[in-house]
Amino acid sequence: MIDLTDNSDTAVKIATLQAKLNKKLGPEFISQRPGPGGGPKLTYAEGWKIINLANDVFGFNGWSSSVVSLSTDFVDYNEESRRYNVGVSAIVRVTLRDGVFHEDVGYGLLENSKSKGAALDKCKKEAVTDGLKRSLRNFGNLLGNCLYDKSYTQEIVKIKVPPVRSGQ
Amino acid sequence: MIDLTDNSDTAVKIATLQAKLNKKLGPEFISQRPGPGGGPKLTYAEGWKIINLANDVFGFNGWSSSVVSLSTDFVDYNEESRRYNVGVSAIVRVTLRDGVFHEDVGYGLLENSKSKGAALDKCKKEAVTDGLKRSLRNFGNLLGNCLYDKSYTQEIVKIKVPPVRSGQ
Amino acid sequence: MIDLTDNSDTAVKIATLQAKLNKKLGPEFISQRPGPGGGPKLTYAEGWKIINLANDVFGFNGWSSSVVSLSTDFVDYNEESRRYNVGVSAIVRVTLRDGVFHEDVGYGLLENSKSKGAALDKCKKEAVTDGLKRSLRNFGNLLGNCLYDKSYTQEIVKIKVPPVRSGQ
Amino acid sequence: MIDLTDNSDTAVKIATLQAKLNKKLGPEFISQRPGPGGGPKLTYAEGWKIINLANDVFGFNGWSSSVVSLSTDFVDYNEESRRYNVGVSAIVRVTLRDGVFHEDVGYGLLENSKSKGAALDKCKKEAVTDGLKRSLRNFGNLLGNCLYDKSYTQEIVKIKVPPVRSGQ
Amino acid sequence: MIDLTDNSDTAVKIATLQAKLNKKLGPEFISQRPGPGGGPKLTYAEGWKIINLANDVFGFNGWSSSVVSLSTDFVDYNEESRRYNVGVSAIVRVTLRDGVFHEDVGYGLLENSKSKGAALDKCKKEAVTDGLKRSLRNFGNLLGNCLYDKSYTQEIVKIKVPPVRSGQ
Amino acid sequence: MIDLTDNSDTAVKIATLQAKLNKKLGPEFISQRPGPGGGPKLTYAEGWKIINLANDVFGFNGWSSSVVSLSTDFVDYNEESRRYNVGVSAIVRVTLRDGVFHEDVGYGLLENSKSKGAALDKCKKEAVTDGLKRSLRNFGNLLGNCLYDKSYTQEIVKIKVPPVRSGQ
Amino acid sequence: MIDLTDNSDTAVKIATLQAKLNKKLGPEFISQRPGPGGGPKLTYAEGWKIINLANDVFGFNGWSSSVVSLSTDFVDYNEESRRYNVGVSAIVRVTLRDGVFHEDVGYGLLENSKSKGAALDKCKKEAVTDGLKRSLRNFGNLLGNCLYDKSYTQEIVKIKVPPVRSGQ
Amino acid sequence: MIDLTDNSDTAVKIATLQAKLNKKLGPEFISQRPGPGGGPKLTYAEGWKIINLANDVFGFNGWSSSVVSLSTDFVDYNEESRRYNVGVSAIVRVTLRDGVFHEDVGYGLLENSKSKGAALDKCKKEAVTDGLKRSLRNFGNLLGNCLYDKSYTQEIVKIKVPPVRSGQ
Amino acid sequence: MIDLTDNSDTAVKIATLQAKLNKKLGPEFISQRPGPGGGPKLTYAEGWKIINLANDVFGFNGWSSSVVSLSTDFVDYNEESRRYNVGVSAIVRVTLRDGVFHEDVGYGLLENSKSKGAALDKCKKEAVTDGLKRSLRNFGNLLGNCLYDKSYTQEIVKIKVPPVRSGQ
Amino acid sequence: MIDLTDNSDTAVKIATLQAKLNKKLGPEFISQRPGPGGGPKLTYAEGWKIINLANDVFGFNGWSSSVVSLSTDFVDYNEESRRYNVGVSAIVRVTLRDGVFHEDVGYGLLENSKSKGAALDKCKKEAVTDGLKRSLRNFGNLLGNCLYDKSYTQEIVKIKVPPVRSGQ
Amino acid sequence: MIDLTDNSDTAVKIATLQAKLNKKLGPEFISQRPGPGGGPKLTYAEGWKIINLANDVFGFNGWSSSVVSLSTDFVDYNEESRRYNVGVSAIVRVTLRDGVFHEDVGYGLLENSKSKGAALDKCKKEAVTDGLKRSLRNFGNLLGNCLYDKSYTQEIVKIKVPPVRSGQ
Repeated sequence: MIDLTDNSDTAVKIATLQAKLNKKLGPEFISQRPGPGGGPKLTYAEGWKIINLANDVFGFNGWSSSVVSLSTDFVDYNEESRRYNVGVSAIVRVTLRDGVFHEDVGYGLLENSKSKGAALDKCKKEAVTDGLKRSLRNFGNLLGNCLYDKSYTQEIVKIKVPPVRSGQ
Repeated sequence: MIDLTDNSDTAVKIATLQAKLNKKLGPEFISQRPGPGGGPKLTYAEGWKIINLANDVFGFNGWSSSVVSLSTDFVDYNEESRRYNVGVSAIVRVTLRDGVFHEDVGYGLLENSKSKGAALDKCKKEAVTDGLKRSLRNFGNLLGNCLYDKSYTQEIVKIKVPPVRSGQ
Repeated sequence: MIDLTDNSDTAVKIATLQAKLNKKLGPEFISQRPGPGGGPKLTYAEGWKIINLANDVFGFNGWSSSVVSLSTDFVDYNEESRRYNVGVSAIVRVTLRDGVFHEDVGYGLLENSKSKGAALDKCKKEAVTDGLKRSLRNFGNLLGNCLYDKSYTQEIVKIKVPPVRSGQ
Repeated sequence: MIDLTDNSDTAVKIATLQAKLNKKLGPEFISQRPGPGGGPKLTYAEGWKIINLANDVFGFNGWSSSVVSLSTDFVDYNEESRRYNVGVSAIVRVTLRDGVFHEDVGYGLLENSKSKGAALDKCKKEAVTDGLKRSLRNFGNLLGNCLYDKSYTQEIVKIKVPPVRSGQ
Repeated sequence: MIDLTDNSDTAVKIATLQAKLNKKLGPEFISQRPGPGGGPKLTYAEGWKIINLANDVFGFNGWSSSVVSLSTDFVDYNEESRRYNVGVSAIVRVTLRDGVFHEDVGYGLLENSKSKGAALDKCKKEAVTDGLKRSLRNFGNLLGNCLYDKSYTQEIVKIKVPPVRSGQ
Repeated sequence: MIDLTDNSDTAVKIATLQAKLNKKLGPEFISQRPGPGGGPKLTYAEGWKIINLANDVFGFNGWSSSVVSLSTDFVDYNEESRRYNVGVSAIVRVTLRDGVFHEDVGYGLLENSKSKGAALDKCKKEAVTDGLKRSLRNFGNLLGNCLYDKSYTQEIVKIKVPPVRSGQ
Repeated sequence: MIDLTDNSDTAVKIATLQAKLNKKLGPEFISQRPGPGGGPKLTYAEGWKIINLANDVFGFNGWSSSVVSLSTDFVDYNEESRRYNVGVSAIVRVTLRDGVFHEDVGYGLLENSKSKGAALDKCKKEAVTDGLKRSLRNFGNLLGNCLYDKSYTQEIVKIKVPPVRSGQ
Repeated sequence: MIDLTDNSDTAVKIATLQAKLNKKLGPEFISQRPGPGGGPKLTYAEGWKIINLANDVFGFNGWSSSVVSLSTDFVDYNEESRRYNVGVSAIVRVTLRDGVFHEDVGYGLLENSKSKGAALDKCKKEAVTDGLKRSLRNFGNLLGNCLYDKSYTQEIVKIKVPPVRSGQ
Repeated sequence: MIDLTDNSDTAVKIATLQAKLNKKLGPEFISQRPGPGGGPKLTYAEGWKIINLANDVFGFNGWSSSVVSLSTDFVDYNEESRRYNVGVSAIVRVTLRDGVFHEDVGYGLLENSKSKGAALDKCKKEAVTDGLKRSLRNFGNLLGNCLYDKSYTQEIVKIKVPPVRSGQ
Repeated sequence: MIDLTDNSDTAVKIATLQAKLNKKLGPEFISQRPGPGGGPKLTYAEGWKIINLANDVFGFNGWSSSVVSLSTDFVDYNEESRRYNVGVSAIVRVTLRDGVFHEDVGYGLLENSKSKGAALDKCKKEAVTDGLKRSLRNFGNLLGNCLYDKSYTQEIVKIKVPPVRSGQ
Repeated sequence: MIDLTDNSDTAVKIATLQAKLNKKLGPEFISQRPGPGGGPKLTYAEGWKIINLANDVFGFNGWSSSVVSLSTDFVDYNEESRRYNVGVSAIVRVTLRDGVFHEDVGYGLLENSKSKGAALDKCKKEAVTDGLKRSLRNFGNLLGNCLYDKSYTQEIVKIKVPPVRSGQ
């Protein structure tokens, strides 16, 4: 790795971070939901868990995020079903303290919604959170890149996680 | 965490802040309202409480907020019911003193309003406050990220909080 | 709080300011007006009082304000009643001397006005002052955040304030 | 107040200014005119008096003003009465020497004018002066904030002021 | 007044200037013309006199002026009378050497002109000079602010000024 | 006058210049032409004389001029007379070496021209030269401000000037 | 190679990196999918593997990526089949810590999708990941350039890779 | 003249230049052409002579020129005569080494041209050269300002100049 | 060659690079494909080979590339053949570490494609890679300039190259 | 000439250059072509000769040129003759090493061309070269200014130049 | 030549370069092709030869090139012949290491092409290469300026060049 400020103290910290980011997500971070159109289940990590991980790895003051763009691709109304289909795209940028960054696209999609407004509300937030997750996964396995490895996700979903009791 | 200015004094302060932000919200911060369309109750924290928390954690001169965009998605008039449906989106950015920031989207939605103006008034403010809350939650559990954890919200709403007497 | 210039003198001043801002508004700052559509009374503080408070807390040369945007949402004319409905939005930014700032949206709404011009005049000013107040409340209870706490406003309006004689 | 350049000399000057600005306007600054539509009298201070006060407080080289925007909202012609209604908005910024500033909106309105040009002339100037006054009042009571306090204006208009003889 | 460069030499000069600017205009600077529509006489100072005064107070290299905007509001042609009505607005900025400035709006209006071009010529120049005068008056009585004080103008116009013989 | 660089040498030069600029134009600089529409004669100074004066006062490398805007207001063709009426506006800025500047508007007008092109040619040049003269006059009497003083122009035109023989 | 900062330490690191990047991908990085229209199989590396490699080579804080553009080329609806064809292009930039960068284009294509939204979701993400891979391959064989060498891909796909067990 | 860099060497050079520029053009620089429409002869200096003079006064590396704008005002085709009338305007800026500059407008006009292209060619070049000449004349008599003095041009054209033999 | 930083170390490196770039491509870099419309064969080097060469010559951190523009010239659909013709242009810039750069245009063309999307996908990538190659060839023979020399390509294609076995 | 960097070495070089530029072109630089419409011959210098002269005077690294604008004024097709008339304008800027520059306009015109493309090709190049020549001539006689002096061109074309044998 | 950095080392290098650039192209650089419309042969140098020369003179890291603009002038389809005519213009800038640059226009033209795409491909590349050559020729004879000298091209094409065997 090109390390221009190689005082040993910083180098050790970065190496520790790298090792952390190389680890894959444990089963307690994994969720599943039905795929679109009755297809196979999708394996994913919820947004709040990934945000907590980012704060854990980089610190609350170690990373920034911005909404580079947020655009509604379509709001279609079906006269017959009186329902709305809504699709929203977001490009989100995640920047570390030292200026390194990644951008990626997220998507929010809702079909057959009774309320146009509720659909837009949900899709816009979903698109931003999805974009945040996709940007963060570029930093390594721990922040979600491992979820794109099917051989891993097939195994990890078989592990049972005991329910956690919420505490403050 | 990448800490480039590691004089112990600052490091201790940041660690203290991090520990604070990792804590989940106590029951006195939790509210509930009916979900849209008679769905399950939504669990949330009121805007003023989150603002007070931000001031508590970062100090009144430790964080800034700006309205990156505010756009009215639709103002629909129903000829039959003579009511208005209004939807407004806001992107809000929260910036800490050292330049770290998060942006996120908020939404304001009102259906069946008799007054177009009152609906716009309410939706625009709601969108900005919602965006502020969603941006702040990126800093950790205490500023709202824990509210996205369903196993936590299911437990926390069961805890009774004694009514508080207002005092100056 | 992240305090990078921690010479004790400044730190004491900031702590004093923080304590001041944490206090809630006394009853002499509280007004009420009928809610829209005969709804419950709205509790609020008049703009001039909040401006005086900001000058008291930050000093006349301690805060700035700017109108980020001012846009007329609608000017509707009712052919039958010959009256105007006008709605105006303003985004206002309040900036402290050290660069910390908040932006928020304000609204000016007037229904059934005989004069289009008088309605625009009133709504534009109302929108800016409303935006100023909403921006200032982000700094804490004293500058208006406590007014969003219903348990507090229910109590505070019960306290009688003796009329004040104006003096120079 | 956050005072970063606290050499006692400057601090004393600022405190003196603050005390000056906290004072309310004396009766010699107060004017009244009929409210719109035969409504209650409006209490106000004339523009030239507020300008003189600003020069008195900040010095002629202590404050700047600029017209951020000036837009004609409407020029309506009534075919029947052959008269014009004109409405103009201005956003004005007042900046102190040390960079502190306020922006606010002013309005110029004239109804039933025989001459379109004379109406535009009057409204544009009125809007700018009105915006100047509203911006200046943010600095405190002396520059006009006290005029928004109804309990004060009700009292102050009762005080008689002897006519002043003009002298050079 | 906030005086950051308080070496006594400069302070004395500024105080002298302030005293000068506080003085009202003598009768030799005052002109009158019929008000629009046969209304009461208007009291004003001619542009060249105010320019000479500005050069007298600030020096020829002590102040700058710029035309921020110049826009023709309307050029109306009356088919019947074959005459033109023209209205022009100008925003003018006056800046002192030390960066202090004021902006204000001026107006040029001509009704019943036979020539469109002559009307535009006159109105544009009138608007710029009017804007210059309104900007300069913000610096104090001497540069025209006293002319907005009706009690003063009523008195000053009664004073006779002997005709001056032109000399070089 | 606010003089920040008061080394006596510069101060003397500036005072000398100021005295020069305060002087009114001698009769050899004065021209007259018929007023528009057979009205009273107009008194003016030709452009080349004012340019020579500017070079005399400020030196050839002491002042700059720029055409801020040049716009054709109208090119009207009269079908009957087969003649053109053309009107052109120019805003010209004159800047001194030390950054002080003035902007003003000039006008070029020609009625009943047989040639559209010749009219545009003449009007554009006239507008720029006129704007140059109006900007320069802001520096004082000598550069043309005295020409706006009617009591002066009435006297000066009575003085006969002997014809000058051209020499190199 | 033009090496301006040739202290031996850095030079060794860069040479090590270069050697790493020159190596071709092992069989465990290679995937195959059917070519479009029943054509020959396409050989490629999955996005997550290339991201892990980039993090391995440059370190998590050694490279950045941004979405330079993301545009939907077409959304075609087939009335007969009631299916959507969607095509999306992305230009992605990858930047190393020392400012060196590559940009390239990626494409996301889906034909015969039942859902417009699902198709846009998939295509936009595919386009960005494809663009990321094409940009990274410019850094050498290891990051994907070897995949464009047909003689290599024909051989590498014949090598069997034992299935890997996922572990944390 | 305001001379801020008054080392005697420079001062002498500038005074020499000023004296040179004050001189009027000798008869060898003067040309005449018929006025438009059979009017009185126009007296002018050819462009190449003025350019040579500028190079003589300021040196080849002492002045710059730029085409601020070049716009075709009209290209009119007369169906009957099958000829073109073309008019082109140019604003040209001349800048001296020390940053002093002048801008002025030039015009190119051709009537009754058989070829549209030849007319545009001629008019565009004429406009630029004309603008160059008008800008240069602002520097004084020698660069053309004397040509606007009719009493001078009436005399100078009477002086005969012997034809010059061209030599290298 | 203009060499401003002529310390011998750098000079030697540059001379070595120059010699390398002057060499022509060996036969192992040469490919051929049928010319358009059954014309003569085209001789070229595949993109991945040129990229490897660039990394070999300049080092992976010695050169950058960017897509200056990417535009679809046409997407034509033939109703009869139900096929698409697509043409795409790209301007690509290649920049060396010391700021030297070349830009050139590349083209992607596909005729008679069944799928619009597949055609756009292929053409866009082809255009960018083609532009990259054309930019790189400006650096000399080795990076592709020799391929434009027909006398060279006629000879080089006659040389047989033994097939290479892929290895890691 | 204003010479601010008057070390004698530079001064001598500049004086030598000035003397060179003052010289007129010898007969070997002069060409003639028929004037448009059978008019008198035009005398000019070919572009490549002027470019060689510029390189001779300023050195190959002593001057730069840029195409400020290039616009096609018209492409007219004559239905009858099936020929094209094309006119193109170019503004070209020539800049010397020390920042001095000139801009001027050039024109390319072709009438009765069979090929639209060939006409555009020729006109665009002609316009740029023509603009280059007109810009360069501002530097003095040697770079073309002498060609505008008719008394010179009439003489110079009479001198016979022996044909030159081309050598390398 | 104005040489501000006249240390003898650099001066010698520049003089050597200048001498090189003054030389004309030898016969081995010269090609001929039929002129448009059966006209006289055109003499030119192929692009790759000029690029090699530029690298030889300035070094591979001594010059940069950029495509300032690339625009398709026309794509004409002949219904009868079913062929395309395409014309493309490019402005190309060549910049030397020390900032000196030239811009010029190039053209790509193809008539009677069966394929629109192939024509655009060819024309765009031809235009850029043509523009590159025309820009480079401004640096002197060696880079192509001698090709515009007809007396030279007439001689040089008569010299036979023995065919060169390609070698690596």
